[in-house]
Amino acid sequence: MKESIGKVPGLAVILVGQRRDSQTYVRNKIKACEEAGIKSLMTELPEDCTEDKILSALSSFNENPSIHGILVQLPLPKHLDEEKILNMVSLEKDVDGFNPLNMGNLAMRGREPVFIPCTAKGCIELLLRSGVEIMGKKAVVIGRSNIAGLPTSLLLQRHHATVSILHALSKNPDQITRQADIVVTAVGVPNLVRGHWLKPGAVVIDVGTYPIEDPSSEFGYRLIGDVCYEEALGVASAVTPVPGGVGPMTIAMLLSNTLDSAKRVYDIT
Amino acid sequence: MKESIGKVPGLAVILVGQRRDSQTYVRNKIKACEEAGIKSLMTELPEDCTEDKILSALSSFNENPSIHGILVQLPLPKHLDEEKILNMVSLEKDVDGFNPLNMGNLAMRGREPVFIPCTAKGCIELLLRSGVEIMGKKAVVIGRSNIAGLPTSLLLQRHHATVSILHALSKNPDQITRQADIVVTAVGVPNLVRGHWLKPGAVVIDVGTYPIEDPSSEFGYRLIGDVCYEEALGVASAVTPVPGGVGPMTIAMLLSNTLDSAKRVYDIT
Repeated sequence: MKESIGKVPGLAVILVGQRRDSQTYVRNKIKACEEAGIKSLMTELPEDCTEDKILSALSSFNENPSIHGILVQLPLPKHLDEEKILNMVSLEKDVDGFNPLNMGNLAMRGREPVFIPCTAKGCIELLLRSGVEIMGKKAVVIGRSNIAGLPTSLLLQRHHATVSILHALSKNPDQITRQADIVVTAVGVPNLVRGHWLKPGAVVIDVGTYPIEDPSSEFGYRLIGDVCYEEALGVASAVTPVPGGVGPMTIAMLLSNTLDSAKRVYDIT
Repeated sequence: MKESIGKVPGLAVILVGQRRDSQTYVRNKIKACEEAGIKSLMTELPEDCTEDKILSALSSFNENPSIHGILVQLPLPKHLDEEKILNMVSLEKDVDGFNPLNMGNLAMRGREPVFIPCTAKGCIELLLRSGVEIMGKKAVVIGRSNIAGLPTSLLLQRHHATVSILHALSKNPDQITRQADIVVTAVGVPNLVRGHWLKPGAVVIDVGTYPIEDPSSEFGYRLIGDVCYEEALGVASAVTPVPGGVGPMTIAMLLSNTLDSAKRVYDIT
């Protein structure tokens, strides 16, 4: 794009507060932008910042024509109105795809979302690129967060899987999961999904991340997933690791959404 | 409302073409409005009418302060852009709840839709009023239409059921359905759900409607559902009939949404 029209895609990131996992995610996203030739702008705001400060940062990114994607790193500190803030992101720059209008279009047949939320898109991309058939297969999604579980369950349905959605109030989640050809888990409960939860040959995508102390790691902690990885390896035909599985794919999809957004603006097909 | 503030809720209905099932539905809705003291306005347009004609009718209803709900009877003739037309209905008057922004808010945790789509709301109301527990129960929704299957699956999730969504490409739908405590079917395939599809004691809600010729009926046809009713009665603990089950509840919810909308406008709690 830079060579053909002399412009590059631009991503703006807003990070509020000092959560170390959020800092890691944002750092990785910025680094990935640099490597991919995407311009990134970052606004860091203190934990106790006012809603107005964030809205004003958002508004300037919304108006900035060199910015094609805006990302508000979640979760936000509790005193802030997450819904109000996310709704302020211009629909055309909502590369996370969290706007309810976008989510509704993802859910509805015959409609097209402007952006597919990155984690969901990353999970399906992993399946497609690994040659896993989705159509007609039984898929279980564990967790129903707006960020991961919900959009993944909707996107699996768009690919014609038969989807069941499990959550904390589901009874016998192991029995239901054991029927699935594809398992996506996104709850952040370490070792929730044991080997006996899985059907032999199932494909398992672990979206869960839970930080545990690890003095030997560069930043003093490391992330672990929802799946008991060693047990799952013995039963499943494929399991994504944490870290190194869905995380990098999510970042890749963020870049892909930002690039798509820039292409739309500059009318490049 | 009429006695307290001298105003009544108003519902506008747009019917395009001559489909006899649509005519029946609209007739029933208008009649229900009359009985409930809701003012109804109806615009009938010919099968071959232009999009502009419909948009102009919609626009006048959007601006009419005595109209609190607007309903475009679906399906529309094929030459019309259903998405574009439905998106023109003001969000505050979209008593059918089919706007994607509304659907997104129904899907997302922590968000509130302005209106819950009538069929879905009717199904859940039937369950609640019959004392059927939803939380933690296994529910199967057969069909994923924007009108019925999708919003019902989302609303069941809001009530914390463990939901599986089946469709034409699902394998072994009988086996999956047989695990469910609550079955909602909404596909329009007569006798799809047989007795052996059901778990003993399951609660079955039949949203399906399929018109068959019946010279003995007032209008020359009658509607039948997705469920093999006689067989289901022997297995399930409860089965809604067609007609007379979900249909009247859907209409009741339409009136309820229209009333809620008027209350919002006139600031009555």
